[in-house]
Parts: sequence; C-alpha cells; structure tokens
Amino acid sequence: MSEKIKGFSKLSKLGKIEWIANKHFSNPTKAIDVLEQYWNEDEKLQKLHDEFSENTISNFYMPFGIAPNFLINGKMYAVPMAIEESSVVAASAKSASFWLERGGFKSEVLSMKKVGHVHFIYNGEEEKLMNFFAKNKTKFFEDTEDITKNMRVRGGGILDLRIKNKSSIEDGYYQLEANFDTRDSMGANFINSCLEVFAQTLEREIAIDSSFSQSEKDIQIVMSILSNYTPECVVRSEVSCTVEELVDGSGITAEEFTTKFSRAVHIAEKEPYRATTHNKGIMNGVDAVVIATGNDFRAVEAAAHTYAAKDGSYGSLSHVEVKDGIFRFWIELPLALGTVGGLTALHPLVKLAYDLLGNPDAEELMMIAATVGLAQNFGALRSLTTTGIQKGHMKMHLLNILNQLDASDNEKRYFVEFFKNKTATHSNVVNEFYKYRGLPIPKDSDIKENGAK
Amino acid sequence: MSEKIKGFSKLSKLGKIEWIANKHFSNPTKAIDVLEQYWNEDEKLQKLHDEFSENTISNFYMPFGIAPNFLINGKMYAVPMAIEESSVVAASAKSASFWLERGGFKSEVLSMKKVGHVHFIYNGEEEKLMNFFAKNKTKFFEDTEDITKNMRVRGGGILDLRIKNKSSIEDGYYQLEANFDTRDSMGANFINSCLEVFAQTLEREIAIDSSFSQSEKDIQIVMSILSNYTPECVVRSEVSCTVEELVDGSGITAEEFTTKFSRAVHIAEKEPYRATTHNKGIMNGVDAVVIATGNDFRAVEAAAHTYAAKDGSYGSLSHVEVKDGIFRFWIELPLALGTVGGLTALHPLVKLAYDLLGNPDAEELMMIAATVGLAQNFGALRSLTTTGIQKGHMKMHLLNILNQLDASDNEKRYFVEFFKNKTATHSNVVNEFYKYRGLPIPKDSDIKENGAK
Repeated sequence: MSEKIKGFSKLSKLGKIEWIANKHFSNPTKAIDVLEQYWNEDEKLQKLHDEFSENTISNFYMPFGIAPNFLINGKMYAVPMAIEESSVVAASAKSASFWLERGGFKSEVLSMKKVGHVHFIYNGEEEKLMNFFAKNKTKFFEDTEDITKNMRVRGGGILDLRIKNKSSIEDGYYQLEANFDTRDSMGANFINSCLEVFAQTLEREIAIDSSFSQSEKDIQIVMSILSNYTPECVVRSEVSCTVEELVDGSGITAEEFTTKFSRAVHIAEKEPYRATTHNKGIMNGVDAVVIATGNDFRAVEAAAHTYAAKDGSYGSLSHVEVKDGIFRFWIELPLALGTVGGLTALHPLVKLAYDLLGNPDAEELMMIAATVGLAQNFGALRSLTTTGIQKGHMKMHLLNILNQLDASDNEKRYFVEFFKNKTATHSNVVNEFYKYRGLPIPKDSDIKENGAK
Repeated sequence: MSEKIKGFSKLSKLGKIEWIANKHFSNPTKAIDVLEQYWNEDEKLQKLHDEFSENTISNFYMPFGIAPNFLINGKMYAVPMAIEESSVVAASAKSASFWLERGGFKSEVLSMKKVGHVHFIYNGEEEKLMNFFAKNKTKFFEDTEDITKNMRVRGGGILDLRIKNKSSIEDGYYQLEANFDTRDSMGANFINSCLEVFAQTLEREIAIDSSFSQSEKDIQIVMSILSNYTPECVVRSEVSCTVEELVDGSGITAEEFTTKFSRAVHIAEKEPYRATTHNKGIMNGVDAVVIATGNDFRAVEAAAHTYAAKDGSYGSLSHVEVKDGIFRFWIELPLALGTVGGLTALHPLVKLAYDLLGNPDAEELMMIAATVGLAQNFGALRSLTTTGIQKGHMKMHLLNILNQLDASDNEKRYFVEFFKNKTATHSNVVNEFYKYRGLPIPKDSDIKENGAK
C-alpha cells in the first residue's frame, strides 16, 4: 500500500526512486537495481529521455524491429516498427514479400485538412451572430498572423473559419470551426494556439459590437481545442492481382482462398464484434510505425476508430472487391501524422527511423503507415482463413514459457520441434521440460502460472 | 531507397543491422552506433527483450514514470505509467492529489465476460442447425476439456455457447458464439485455442449427423477468433464531492467551474469531433498503465472506442451529474486486462510495476487503469475550461526546443521565466537563445524547423 506524498515531482530522480523503493518494496535494493539496469550509460542521453515526460524513473523497452521488402508506389522501404506484441513484425514482413512479387502497394493521400473548434455558449439571435462573424472574419486571421507566419511560409496555415449552430446538443451551444493545413507537422500546438487566440478575438469583438444586447455579449468560452477526429486527413492504400496469383502454397486453391478472405472482410464490414478485432490487427501495424516515428498513437487510434463508426455502425477500415478475375484489397483511414515537431527531431532512434525511411514528408509517412496496416491485416486474415491464428501464436507462447524456464538455445530448438503437433499448454511445457532435464516435475503451485494470452 | 532481400529474418541480429546500415545510411557506422547505444549492457537481458518480437535490432525507450497519491476504494497507489507524451503523468498526479483531498476514487468491475466466435457458412435449414446444436452442445465442452482444465481449476473456463443466425450480413453466415471467464489472464490464447477446437467439433459432428443433407453438411469455417470488443467486461470509476469543494485556486468560482466542466462533458457526449479528443485524453492515462503492466494497448483502444460508438453515434466514455449540490463524474469502459500470461512474468520492468501496485489481480488492475483514465480526463477538462490547454503544453514545447539547442539547466530556467507571458514560437525561442548567448542569430533555414505539435 502506497502513502500520501507532497511534492513528489520536486524530488530528484534518485529521491523519487528511493521513496518508491522504500515505501513499496520488501527488497528496496533489488527494486532500485531493476530500475537502474534499464538506464542508459550515457548520462546526457538518459537525461534527454527523462525530460520527455514527468516523474520519469526508468525506460520501458519496446522492441524496435524492421519489416523489409515493402514496395509502395514503386519505391522500396525497410520499415521500422516499435511494438511489444510478437508475430506483428513477422506478419508484416511476410505480407510485404508476398505483395512485392505481385506489384507492391499503391497508396495515395486523399486529403490533409485538420480541424479545431472554439466551443462556446451564446444566448441570443443566431442571425446576429452570423452577421457579426461575416463582418469580423478577417480579424480572426489578423490576430493569429504572428502565430501563423512560419506555417504560411511553409505553405500551410488557417484554411477556413465558420460558425456552427449546435444548440440541439446543448442550449446556446455554438462552434467556431476552423480548418488548418499544418504541412509536415502534426500541428496540435499550432492549432490549439490559433484557437485560443480565436477565443480571445471572439470575446473582445462581441464585447464592443453594438448590435448585441448586454446579455448577448455575455458569451461563455467553454474550451478551445483541436479535434483528433480528422475525416478530411485521409490516406488510402491498396493491393491488387489476379485471383490466380493468390496461390501461396498453403494448400487451398486460389478460388477458395479468395472466397474465404472476401467473406472475412465482408463480415468485418458489418459485424462490430469482428470489426473491432479486425481493426485492432490493422492498428498493430499502424501503431508500430507511428511509435517508431515519434508520433502519438492515442491520437491515431481515436481517429481511426471514430472513422470506423462514422456511418452509424462500427465497421472494418479495409475492404475487398473481386471483379473480372481481379482481387483488390484496400484500406482507407484518417492519419494525422507529423514528420517535424514533437519527438521527431529530439529522439535519436526516431531520427534514425526517418533516415531509414529516406526522410519522408508527412504525406509519404501516412502512406507508409497505412500500407503497413493493410499488410498486417492481409497477413492476419490469411492466417485466420487458412491455418488458423493459433499455430504461429503458440510457437511464440512456447518460446516465452521456455524463456521463463531459462532454457538454452538447444533446448528451445528441441521443444519447438517436440510441440510442433502437440498443444503447448503451460503445464505441458513445464512437465516436458523438467522431464527432459531429468528433474522431478514441480507441483503446479511452485511455478507462477503463465496463463494464456 | 531500400532493396529487396530474401531471408532477412534468418540473419543474425548483427547481420540485420549491417544490411540496414549499409543499404540505407550514408554513414553506416553512425547508424550502428545509434542502434547500439540503446542496447542493454546485460547481454542476457537484451536477448530476452529481442525475443519478445521479430527482427529486433534495438530498444525503443518509452519514459517510465510514476503518478503517486491515487486513492482508490480506500487504498493508496503510486501508479506506474509508460508514455512518451509530455504532461500526461503530471496531469494524472495532479488530479490524483486533488481527489485525494476529496475522498478519492470509487471503482468497481461490473462484469468480466469475454467473447469469441467461430464464423461459418451453413447453407441449410436454420431449425436443423439449432436442433443439432442443442443435441451436441456438451461435445463442444468435452472436446476442449484438455485445454480448459487449468482454467477450470482457477475458477474460469467456458461460460456458455450459442448459435447465432447472421445471414442478414452474408448469405448463410452463422456464428458459434462463446463466452469465457479467463480469470486473471487476458485470455486471447486460451479463447482462440478453444474456438479452433469448436470449429473442428462443429465440422466433425455435422459430417456424421444424418439429419443434414449432403450439401448441408458442406459447411465452411471462415475463421475462429476472439473478439476484442468486450462490452461485458466493463469497469466503472467515479469521483464525487460537493460543488463548493470544487474551488481549486484557479480564480473561477466553484459554480462557474461546475457549469463549464459539465458543459464540456455534455458536448463530448453528443459531438463526435469533441468526443474523439475527449476519449483520446482518457486513453492517454489508460494506455500508460496498460503498457507499464505488459498489456496490449491496441486491444484496449479498439474495445474502448467501439464501446463509445455502441449507441449509433460516437460519444464520450465519461459522464457528469450535478444534483442536490453534489458533483459526480464517472467513466465506464471495457477493459480486458491480464495480470498473468503474456509479458507479465517475463519483462522485469513489468514485474516491478506489479510489485509497485501490490500485485493486483485482473479486476483490481482494471479499476486502477480506468481510474487513471478518469483522472486524466478530469485534469484535461479542468485545464481546457479554465486556463486553456496551451499554457502547460507550451512550457514543455519550450523545453524541447531548448534541449534541441543544447541549453544548460541555468539557461532553461532563465527561458522558462522569460517566456512565462510571451508566445514561445520556435523562431522566437531560437532568436532569444542566440541573443542571450551573444551569438549572431542564424537564418531560419540553418535550423531544422521544430514545427508545432
């Protein structure tokens, strides 16, 4: 049980660790050792990472891996992926190779608009507000000139402004809605800074406008904030080939594969229980690229899933069509990514990820991330509709148990072979392992159950 | 531009790195140095982390921080959070302290059921299939007895099985739907293993049942897979206090704060553009706990957002009520977490996170993660409706620019003070920094634009 503490954030890193260790661990020295073994030896580099967030006491490792052989719009990529889940990088790489032999991926960015709102309450005549806004619209642009200067030099800025009556949601609720082009930055700081100025302009100009009554002037700014829902910042990625080309040696015919695969996608388009897992698999690929390139996966996740629910029922982000002997499989999703700003220039491994990708701009990165999502989805559906998902998973599961038992590489090889056609439950593996080593088989309670995941 | 490569996964780690470095970097030695500087000195520990995924060449650091002072159901927690975004840990800790003075958080798990499906095509009479299933239901349980044995010992297992007619979605589409209790494991492997056996049982028993015609016997198993959408594995967390207690020294009255805060929540309940960002903020908190405890954030994200869209329109996961002078703020979301299995027993920092939390079971972890999400949401809405979100963000933004410029700690202190009431755009900071150091101000093009994020 923890204790109340005042001023924790003001403690030094060591001070924080000591408090944590002494108050929460029966063996404080061991806890400190675990935290410290993950520190970087380079103190300056460690300090940089500590300062990305607050109350930082160690580094959580995400495996940083590579999926080579991605051919996108005629260009080859080896894609960096940061993800803790097994099988994802392997499945992406396998799909990339499969499609490399069949013309690769075609991808395009459909639109790049971002959006934000000043949410406010106005209790007055709608027409007056609309007239006021038409008359004063330029002032909103003028007041943000300082903030938008650099963005305008780069070809971006505020695209448009409008007032929306949303009083059906809440009495007197209106939005000042703005669209932005934030070029190669994700743009959250830029958008929020503009919106906070808009809110000030709105309050100031209404206060001095004589067409409003005193009570009408009394507007309330509820909040000013970008939206992570970006249905106009959308990328599309696609593969296609003839149905005959879909033979891959897994034993089923191209026609049967095509039928089952298409059914699996159609089911995901309409059945929320399936769509959630289907899209989860897509995001396995997308998020791994998003993290490796220093972007914010929570923003990307929120936008993708809201987009999946945009038609009133939650459905698949990917789609399939079989027509005139041609199989087409594609994905369309919103992806508000940045290649400048945030961690991109600060995090050495993120910088390396950009170099590896040939320093793409935001549009190119959107295409890469969407493509990895599509590749991941293709791989998952192919496994699901042919051999089943468990075959690959159970091998990783087996290796995890063997790692826990401190198996040698030779023992690992032996047991992967041994369990090829047997079910590798936790207790089976433990029993066989002890037998193999000639040791007495431990009671179930002696080993922390690894469970099933 | 990358090149095609065969057998990349079979290369040694060093072999992979050499290929990457030589084919993609103008300075291969420097690239290798960056990758290696993130390796752990302890070779065995590094190998463990490499094996969590595939084609692993380095470790991506997520800051691992602590949010203390969480009082949940009368118990104090210091919560481990792994997240790269600034301000999240600080906001969580601040909210935790605020509510610690007001009775803390109450949390409860409403249900723990998980779900999976055998998706199949049956072209025959529905009634025959239903009769067949009623007659053979026990066989499905029997055939999985081996797999479910350990889970049953722990009090879990298969809860129920049913056939669902889903032919409105796709001709002849049916589901064998199963509910599971997976105790303290997330349960994906367990559920998928059971489902794959169900599929075999279904095919086998239909094939030998004389009530089906030959064409009816020809069912097609499309896929067997758990659903990450778990609307019956749900947790609820809540805070409440009198409206007067909501004064926090930010300058606005308790009544005004309550009105604005409630409006912000009501807007998020009904307006998808706002709801997406509102829920994104919640997931900032939830995911940080999910990652630190070795769970899968893509699964959690997918479930949460599908749940937010369950009523036909995407809305907020948190809700507010002000009644008889009492302010109540709560969250309800699905969270299928595990405290055994997967990385939980393997990853040393994950193990430490569990020790820090007092080794909670799955239900307790669900309550902790949901509570951090609620705390995060409270903090974000409080900033948004009072000072605006940019004040805190811009300080972090400023520190990032200063880090990029290699500023000393003294310089950082000076500039945080200097920009307290000025807008810290990238060029402003750079100009002032060079002025302060007495150096000529560089042209804009000389510095990689940090952009806005």
